[in-house]
Amino acid sequence: MVITSVNNDYIKEVNKLHQKKYRDESKTFIVEGDHLIGEAYKSGYLKEIITLENNLVKYDDIKTVYVTKEVMDKISEQVSSTNIIGICNYIENKDVNNNVIMLDSLQDPGNLGTIIRSAVAFNYNVVLGDNSVDIYNSKVLRSTEGMIFNVNFIKSNLLDFINEHNDYKYYIADMNRGINVKKINNIPKHGIIVGNEGNGISNEIRNMDLDYVHIGQNNKCESLNVGVAASIIMHELGDINE
Amino acid sequence: MVITSVNNDYIKEVNKLHQKKYRDESKTFIVEGDHLIGEAYKSGYLKEIITLENNLVKYDDIKTVYVTKEVMDKISEQVSSTNIIGICNYIENKDVNNNVIMLDSLQDPGNLGTIIRSAVAFNYNVVLGDNSVDIYNSKVLRSTEGMIFNVNFIKSNLLDFINEHNDYKYYIADMNRGINVKKINNIPKHGIIVGNEGNGISNEIRNMDLDYVHIGQNNKCESLNVGVAASIIMHELGDINE
Repeated sequence: MVITSVNNDYIKEVNKLHQKKYRDESKTFIVEGDHLIGEAYKSGYLKEIITLENNLVKYDDIKTVYVTKEVMDKISEQVSSTNIIGICNYIENKDVNNNVIMLDSLQDPGNLGTIIRSAVAFNYNVVLGDNSVDIYNSKVLRSTEGMIFNVNFIKSNLLDFINEHNDYKYYIADMNRGINVKKINNIPKHGIIVGNEGNGISNEIRNMDLDYVHIGQNNKCESLNVGVAASIIMHELGDINE
Repeated sequence: MVITSVNNDYIKEVNKLHQKKYRDESKTFIVEGDHLIGEAYKSGYLKEIITLENNLVKYDDIKTVYVTKEVMDKISEQVSSTNIIGICNYIENKDVNNNVIMLDSLQDPGNLGTIIRSAVAFNYNVVLGDNSVDIYNSKVLRSTEGMIFNVNFIKSNLLDFINEHNDYKYYIADMNRGINVKKINNIPKHGIIVGNEGNGISNEIRNMDLDYVHIGQNNKCESLNVGVAASIIMHELGDINE
């Protein structure tokens, strides 16, 4: 059977998943395109596939719904046309067990995607603080390049996290303050806190009397992109040894 | 006088600057928003301003053209509305005199913007190889956060550049090959070559028998974002000392 109407009840339910509220209710989210769906499948999070009636689908054990191009275009958020969409279950996370990168009201989806990709590369878990962009936002998912299924992340108020994990050494990333990241040696298990793109670190974190770390740079540069800054610090302080 | 018609000849000429061909002909480009225009002014590249009739403009010595909101929206490429647009002269570049980051067919405007910002931070000049995205593309300009006016860049075929600058040590950035970037010490003046987002380094560069450098990472990560990878290597090998 092929769904031909954009007003079909199932399609309406799927379309609601573009909103965080409905994602949180159903504990499911949408991914688009072969690469992300392949990663979802490998990780065991792929629940259903929606695809064009003439598309050859490779995942025999996953419920597959066929739709017309008109219906697909109604669901897809991509500019160029998609021929496959996956519905995935929310990702179950383990307690943090590695170094962590902590996001204080990070807002840009591309920056979160970049940080997730680098966190996987450098063995960091991710702590999403309050007011950070939703990790299941479609732009975040695209910019993780599939690494969403390989990262261990938790959502937590950052103050609560710090109070509950007092075996970690914490650093606030700052433009100008603190130790140069290249001068830190033999750092134990640690958390690095990066702030909002416009406003930086919130006052409640600044008031906690934590140490600061900065990246040495030419003073002509007003600031690095926050995704880049976080990645540089994770590369420098992370536990990858080869 | 206020220009009220989107069909005004001057406005038509300005709109042509959204195309690379006309930018190259007139050697001018468009920037949008107060921040970029402020940076253009400070650097001496701001030629003209187009602004809304009721906008208080701060640059007395720059030719200013007033337009209606309808005309402004016709020129602007921003989703949210802009109230000021600048026409800038093409940037004059000096011969390269520092370390260089070399872009082999880099395509994504956001990645080029990120690399320019990091190049300023870590004292690198930028060599834009053939087939790289145009540096005056509006998305590139926005993502440089004004650093376009502080970077020294040249456009050059990369093979020609290498042949003409044989006092540089060259490294090709690669996922898996070559020396770990953390293990390079006392590196002299150098060029780092990063490749296209999808296809990596071109064969003509690979055939040159240069050394490779890689970033140590978890093998679960398929690849870092190219802007991030370039930034990490520039941070690691650059000449910022503090």
